[in-house]
Amino acid sequence: MADETVGFIGLGIMGKPMALNLAAAGFDLVVHSRSPGPVDELVQAGARRAASPAQVAAVCDTLITMLPDTPDVQHVLFDEPDGAAAALRPGSLVVDMSTISPIASREFGDQLRARAVGFVDAPVSGGERGAIDATLSIMIGGSAGDVARAMPLFEAMGKTIVHVGDGGAGQVAKACNQLVVASTIEAVAEALALAARAGVDPARVREALLGGFAGSKIMEIHGQRMLDENFQPGFRARLHLKDARIVLDTARGVGSPTPGFEPVAAALTTLVEGGGGELDHAALFTLLKDGKGSGDA
Amino acid sequence: MADETVGFIGLGIMGKPMALNLAAAGFDLVVHSRSPGPVDELVQAGARRAASPAQVAAVCDTLITMLPDTPDVQHVLFDEPDGAAAALRPGSLVVDMSTISPIASREFGDQLRARAVGFVDAPVSGGERGAIDATLSIMIGGSAGDVARAMPLFEAMGKTIVHVGDGGAGQVAKACNQLVVASTIEAVAEALALAARAGVDPARVREALLGGFAGSKIMEIHGQRMLDENFQPGFRARLHLKDARIVLDTARGVGSPTPGFEPVAAALTTLVEGGGGELDHAALFTLLKDGKGSGDA
Repeated sequence: MADETVGFIGLGIMGKPMALNLAAAGFDLVVHSRSPGPVDELVQAGARRAASPAQVAAVCDTLITMLPDTPDVQHVLFDEPDGAAAALRPGSLVVDMSTISPIASREFGDQLRARAVGFVDAPVSGGERGAIDATLSIMIGGSAGDVARAMPLFEAMGKTIVHVGDGGAGQVAKACNQLVVASTIEAVAEALALAARAGVDPARVREALLGGFAGSKIMEIHGQRMLDENFQPGFRARLHLKDARIVLDTARGVGSPTPGFEPVAAALTTLVEGGGGELDHAALFTLLKDGKGSGDA
Repeated sequence: MADETVGFIGLGIMGKPMALNLAAAGFDLVVHSRSPGPVDELVQAGARRAASPAQVAAVCDTLITMLPDTPDVQHVLFDEPDGAAAALRPGSLVVDMSTISPIASREFGDQLRARAVGFVDAPVSGGERGAIDATLSIMIGGSAGDVARAMPLFEAMGKTIVHVGDGGAGQVAKACNQLVVASTIEAVAEALALAARAGVDPARVREALLGGFAGSKIMEIHGQRMLDENFQPGFRARLHLKDARIVLDTARGVGSPTPGFEPVAAALTTLVEGGGGELDHAALFTLLKDGKGSGDA
C-alpha cells in the first residue's frame, strides 16, 4: 500500500467519509473536490490537495471518482484541459464508484482502455451511514485483474463486496437494486395506505406481514418510517429519481420491459416536483394519503 | 376441547391438511366438502361426515370455512335450503379462513351477528406446506371474545397468529399481503430480466442485492425460482389473480390509490389468460423474457 498513490475526486456526502476511511487505512491519498471544506478535512487526515482532476491524475496509480451523475464523471475524466484521462499514466486504474448509466460507464471504460488505463465500475449502496462506518455494499464490474488490484481499497470502504461481472456489471446491479428498492417502497406504501383507509391499524398489518412472504428490509425500515411519518433521509427522493431515470434509460437501451417500475418512477417524479426531493424516498407514502393516485402527474 | 364440536367445510388443498391437524389435536370434528375423497380421509382420521353445510352447522359449536372465493362462502353460509347460517345455534361461532373480499366478509359478519352467531375472519398465508406443517400465518379480524374462543383452533393450524383488528381486518391484512407479494415478485422479475438482457449474470445480481435494502423473502425464494425457471407451485398465478382482484376492489371501495399495483395485476391477468394460471406466481418473470411489456394486454 505504502508505495501506491490513490487519487480521490468527489468529496460529497458519500465521498468524504469514504476517502477518510482510505486515509485511516494508511493509503497515500491525493484529493480534489469542488468545495474546499471537505478537502481541508482530508488534508487534516493526511491527504494531499490537488487543484484539478488532471493534477490528481498525474500523480496517482489508482484514481477513485465518487460523483453525483453521469455528466459529472464525463466532465472529470474527459473534459479539456483539466480532465483526468489525458493525464493518467499508462498502466494506471480508474475506479468509478458513482452511480451512473451502465451504458455510459462501458463507454468510459472503452475510452480509458484505449489509453492503456484500466477501469472498474463499483457503485455502492448503504448510504452515508454505510460510508462512515465502512460497511458499504459494493457492486463491481471489470476484469479480474483490475478488480483484484482495487480490492484493498474496497475492503477499506465496504463490507459486502461482490464482483458481479465484466465492465458495467456493477452499474447494472445498482440499477437493478434501485428498481427493486423503489418498487418495494411503493408496494409497502400502497399496502399500509390501503390498511389505514380500510379502517385497520397499519402498524398491526406491518407486524402481521413482516414474518411472511411480504417481509423485506423495506417493510421493516421504510414501513416503520411511514408509520412514524418520519421522512428524514436516509436516501433522498431526488437521488432515487436520478437513479430511476438510469433504470428506465438502461431498460429501454437493452429492450427490457419495466411495466411495474414505470408508475413507481412517475410517483418519484411527482414527489420531487411537489417539493419532496430532500425527503427520504419512503415519502412516496405521502402521495397516497390524500386518496389521489401517485401516478396522476 | 372434548366437549366442543368443530365443523369444517371445504377440504381442498389447504382445508384438508388444516382439518387433519385439528383432528390430530383431538378436536371433535364434523366435516363437509364437495369431493368425497378428502372427506373419507378425514373420517379415517376420526372426523364425522355431514351431507350438507346445514347438517354441519346443526351439530357444531364453531364452524370453520375454507373455501376458494367470496361466492363460495356466500353459498355455504346463506344459500337456501342447505346453507349453514339458518342451522347454526345462537351463541355459536363462524371462523372463515378463506381469502375473500374484506367488504363481503364484514357483511357476512353483520348477517351472522343478527342471528346471535359470532364471526371471525382469519385468512392464512404459508401455502400447502404451511397447512400440512401447521405453520400457517393467520391474520385475524373480530372481537376479542370471538378471537379468544377460536385461538385453540388457530394454534393447532398455524404458527404466526396475529389479531389484526375488528371484523374484516384479517381480510384487509391478507389483501395488503397479496399486494406486496405480487408487486415484489414483479420488481424482482423486472430486475433479473434487466440484468440478463444487459448481459450480466442475474444470479450474481441477486446475490449482490440480497444483503441490502433490495433484500426480501421474495428475492430469496422467488428470485431463485426465476433463475432456475422452476415454476412448479408454490402459489398458483390464478389464485394470486383472484386475490389481486380482491385488492383492487377493496382499494377502489375505500378510495385508496394503487398506481404501482395496477400493472402488476394486469401482468397476472396476462399470465393467467396466456395459460400460465397453474404455474407459480414467480412465472411473472416469463412475461419479461421475450422483451414485451407484461402489461400490454
